[in-house]
Amino acid sequence: MAGRNTSPGRSVTSKALTILEAFTGERVELSMSEIARATGLPSSTVHRLIQDLVDWGGLERTSEGRYCVGVRLWEIAARSTRTYGLREAAMPFLQSLWEVTRAHILLAVLDGGEALLVEKITGTTDVPPVGRAGGRLPLHASAVGKVLLAHSSPDFQERVLSGPLIGYTPATIVTAETLRLELARVRRDGVATSEDELTPGSTSCAALATGPAEMGMAAISILGTTGARDLREMKILVQTAGRGLTHALAGPGPRQPISPRLPRAVPRTR
Amino acid sequence: MAGRNTSPGRSVTSKALTILEAFTGERVELSMSEIARATGLPSSTVHRLIQDLVDWGGLERTSEGRYCVGVRLWEIAARSTRTYGLREAAMPFLQSLWEVTRAHILLAVLDGGEALLVEKITGTTDVPPVGRAGGRLPLHASAVGKVLLAHSSPDFQERVLSGPLIGYTPATIVTAETLRLELARVRRDGVATSEDELTPGSTSCAALATGPAEMGMAAISILGTTGARDLREMKILVQTAGRGLTHALAGPGPRQPISPRLPRAVPRTR
Repeated sequence: MAGRNTSPGRSVTSKALTILEAFTGERVELSMSEIARATGLPSSTVHRLIQDLVDWGGLERTSEGRYCVGVRLWEIAARSTRTYGLREAAMPFLQSLWEVTRAHILLAVLDGGEALLVEKITGTTDVPPVGRAGGRLPLHASAVGKVLLAHSSPDFQERVLSGPLIGYTPATIVTAETLRLELARVRRDGVATSEDELTPGSTSCAALATGPAEMGMAAISILGTTGARDLREMKILVQTAGRGLTHALAGPGPRQPISPRLPRAVPRTR
Repeated sequence: MAGRNTSPGRSVTSKALTILEAFTGERVELSMSEIARATGLPSSTVHRLIQDLVDWGGLERTSEGRYCVGVRLWEIAARSTRTYGLREAAMPFLQSLWEVTRAHILLAVLDGGEALLVEKITGTTDVPPVGRAGGRLPLHASAVGKVLLAHSSPDFQERVLSGPLIGYTPATIVTAETLRLELARVRRDGVATSEDELTPGSTSCAALATGPAEMGMAAISILGTTGARDLREMKILVQTAGRGLTHALAGPGPRQPISPRLPRAVPRTR
């Protein structure tokens, strides 16, 4: 069948996308043979698909003949409403939180059973790293994750509650009953915390922001050293930011386009 | 040939990527028929490729049955060294500039004959909009563009100099001779300005930052209302930020991975 590869059930498109997926958070540059190994695709297929991706700008070739994710792919992805569009609306609130607290500030959305970090402003406080935008955090152990989980559908919550709950530290909630109570508390208080539950010595505090249907919900968190900051103050600050972002997303104001509309004068003689 | 469509010279991969490209800075949500119209591909092909892209997360279906760029694509694109990797290193410098000036702060790289905005921190000053991250600015009329053009290869410079130079305002440089002199001045001064040349009433001032080979060069700019700010001060500030970023990119420090390395304890009984 035209447009399908001979391997049944796996389209050419999905193979090309599998190649893009070979680039992980910790491996941002790969050789052709590393890509073949990571994807399990035949070398000839990898060779051809890489060429297509390079031609388009989805991948770029480095001076050493290796490959990395291309600028063009990033440019298209910047049009994603649920990540980059959200981030654009959230930035003023995140910056204000950072100015006041100098802590790490995170913005996350629910994706594929985890919290995907859409933005992270690095704090000046001496706290353990939490990855960066594009990274993921577990739902049951992070403050942003708990907020997103607490407000997701009952079906989805039950799936997470019945799955394995990995213990990252002795403080991680690993039983379904405790997590169920915790999620009810998050819904009641309007704010979630994670004290040493994901990384020892690190406390985070997160609140919800909701947008229009195409954007869904997001969580904003403040993250700092455990015990170094007034937890009540952190809670009030994230709740205010979450509500502010919810208002901003509901606002009737026209969203700023990605590229400015420039006045184009007729080219003058040169 | 397996993996190729019947149309000669156009691979399935390139068609799938063409679909992604239909989403522009001003049209972030499209229906299936709008995608077919924008790409010129047959409806059946569009239907099948959209399905592949949705399955993978490259596109998402909205509640109204329209499509937008997916979170998964954004996540992969966040691994691009030349945009998101650069942005991560640059953020502390951009935030400092924003704190001091409260102006718009831009970070841009050269891509396909234009300056691609990798980051924009929105200022509190009353200046005209310049788009957002993911947007593009013309090389000959913006401060970031002039910096990138002045430091690009002589061949590339000649191509731009010989092409049409669109006049966006009466102040835009539209002759090759004037632009050539301007670029020499940018290289000598280490800083570029654009005073009312792209948008009337808006002045920007940009400096260069250089990274390792796989990252290349970038430009940082401060953008504010014309006449409202001391231009010498703006120049010193962006130059300092540009040099700071260059040092940061050259540093031997291990780059933080996108996702944190979490200690994974053995799941406890639940």
